[in-house]
Amino acid sequence: METLRAAITGVNAWFPEYRLTNDELATMVDTSDEWIMQRVGIKERRILKGKNQGTSVLGAEAVKGLLKKTGTRADEVDLLICATVTPDMMFPATANIISDKVGIKNAFSFDLNAACSGFLFALQTAAEYVKSGRYKKVILVGADKMSSITDYTDRTTCPLFGDAAGAILLEPTTQDMGIIDHLFHTEGSGRQFLYLKAGGSERPASHETVDAREHFIFQEGQTVFKFAVSSMADVAVEVMKRNKLEARDVAWLVPHQANLRIIDATGRRMGLDPSQIMINIEKFGNTTAATIPLCLWEYEDRMKRGDNIILAAFGGGFTWGALYLKWAYDTKK
Amino acid sequence: METLRAAITGVNAWFPEYRLTNDELATMVDTSDEWIMQRVGIKERRILKGKNQGTSVLGAEAVKGLLKKTGTRADEVDLLICATVTPDMMFPATANIISDKVGIKNAFSFDLNAACSGFLFALQTAAEYVKSGRYKKVILVGADKMSSITDYTDRTTCPLFGDAAGAILLEPTTQDMGIIDHLFHTEGSGRQFLYLKAGGSERPASHETVDAREHFIFQEGQTVFKFAVSSMADVAVEVMKRNKLEARDVAWLVPHQANLRIIDATGRRMGLDPSQIMINIEKFGNTTAATIPLCLWEYEDRMKRGDNIILAAFGGGFTWGALYLKWAYDTKK
Repeated sequence: METLRAAITGVNAWFPEYRLTNDELATMVDTSDEWIMQRVGIKERRILKGKNQGTSVLGAEAVKGLLKKTGTRADEVDLLICATVTPDMMFPATANIISDKVGIKNAFSFDLNAACSGFLFALQTAAEYVKSGRYKKVILVGADKMSSITDYTDRTTCPLFGDAAGAILLEPTTQDMGIIDHLFHTEGSGRQFLYLKAGGSERPASHETVDAREHFIFQEGQTVFKFAVSSMADVAVEVMKRNKLEARDVAWLVPHQANLRIIDATGRRMGLDPSQIMINIEKFGNTTAATIPLCLWEYEDRMKRGDNIILAAFGGGFTWGALYLKWAYDTKK
Repeated sequence: METLRAAITGVNAWFPEYRLTNDELATMVDTSDEWIMQRVGIKERRILKGKNQGTSVLGAEAVKGLLKKTGTRADEVDLLICATVTPDMMFPATANIISDKVGIKNAFSFDLNAACSGFLFALQTAAEYVKSGRYKKVILVGADKMSSITDYTDRTTCPLFGDAAGAILLEPTTQDMGIIDHLFHTEGSGRQFLYLKAGGSERPASHETVDAREHFIFQEGQTVFKFAVSSMADVAVEVMKRNKLEARDVAWLVPHQANLRIIDATGRRMGLDPSQIMINIEKFGNTTAATIPLCLWEYEDRMKRGDNIILAAFGGGFTWGALYLKWAYDTKK
């Protein structure tokens, strides 16, 4: 029996039209373009406006476009996984809702939550299903409507987050392509530094939690930053070592886009030139599960078949990890 | 290379002491023991009392006991998955929190949400990781504090749900044991019949959603019942056929415990004798992701190595499926 690998064979992204700029934020809280750019490197982020517009709106558009772009019929898809921390509702899974919205009827689907590492953990999970040989067309969506849990009166967090979705198609391959290695970690003692205080089973929604603004992201920025800088770099370097990759062997680092300084530090530790790092945080901010596929989509034209690519993420939990893949296709222009 | 399978090598459960009986419910809403027993077959359910007690409390106790029972050190565990619809909070993942509470430091962990099919979908997901050969000790926890989303003024839903957690250990085996086949489905158009209206990105928590009691389970019981009866039976029968199993070959059906009538109908369609069906709904009600491991725990002594066992579930989404495994051990008495 030939060894199967899971290869990314298509990528798409979708984001709302509305751009929330630093200048507009400066009219809402005590901040400035200069302050935000210096600290996190974000210029603007997209916001999904309108009532009753959940994360599935973003995810469904990304998947619709992916099906079209890759010439995949909805009825061919046999598994759809959605990575998100902002599901439409606690249940059913946003993956189920996206499947319904795009007409996927022959798949099973579920949500996976590992905060900002969600896309990475879900990518390996999808890959495990593909490697089994049974699942031939697997879609992974990373989608988050972060504006639904962002407190626009909190100057320390509201500049950070945006809304977007990215989707990839995974298919089996017997070639030396696709997802090769991964290294993932959880450190649950970090949970009090980055979390949503209320709305779950520990502290269900009440008038008190709404008044206390506990349905918005809480972050102790300095602690998260320190842990993220070292962890993301450590794990990315270790994945390089495990696979005997030197900096010159790596075509691209695709980092989770939370903070430009964390991205820079990771790239430096890996010995990469800044030109080897995918960055679009300036335009989108931190879109949580969507950042990595959003980067892949934006840089799709520049990746070449056989490119060694390292994905890396760090997020709430804490969770973090790195994944090594060989890009499987050249984009037709 | 030998083919690896994932085998369940240990099971444990945990539930709170407090028993909410039908008689106590009858003092809260217009209902009676007779009415509840006739319709769904539930006599009592366990409730986790106390402030700020989330689902991780249930899950951590189940995992602690599992580690002890199986002689597994926390540092040996390399992956922990939590299936839940009632996470402690939207993020970080309850799996991260459980890992921290029980001292698991060398694993990565994430939550998986597929409503009442969550444990089943997560079991196959865990199995895929084990089959890769890289993950040797994988823990899957199904845990739900359903009382956190149950409206105890709604007589149609409040008798149905309870709080509990079940946990299993999965290990690789080269023997003809463990998880053999599965068949899973999603039909997202069923999402408006069983869901949580508010608290997600579509309808974030507000004074309005709290007043409208939208943070509690909404269920259109008749529609869900009809769909569940046929779907769960269909998929269980199909898994038998695919694996050339006659009723006499099946040692046990382990059905999700939502409604005794759905369980009975599934068993009949499979041609099983009632004595072949694991049932504990009378004592626990529907504990969502916990029902199946709770059954496995309760019947552990009666299963024998080599037993053909079919697990089946149906839930919000809609999601449903069946999984076929060969039980891998005899319980030491």
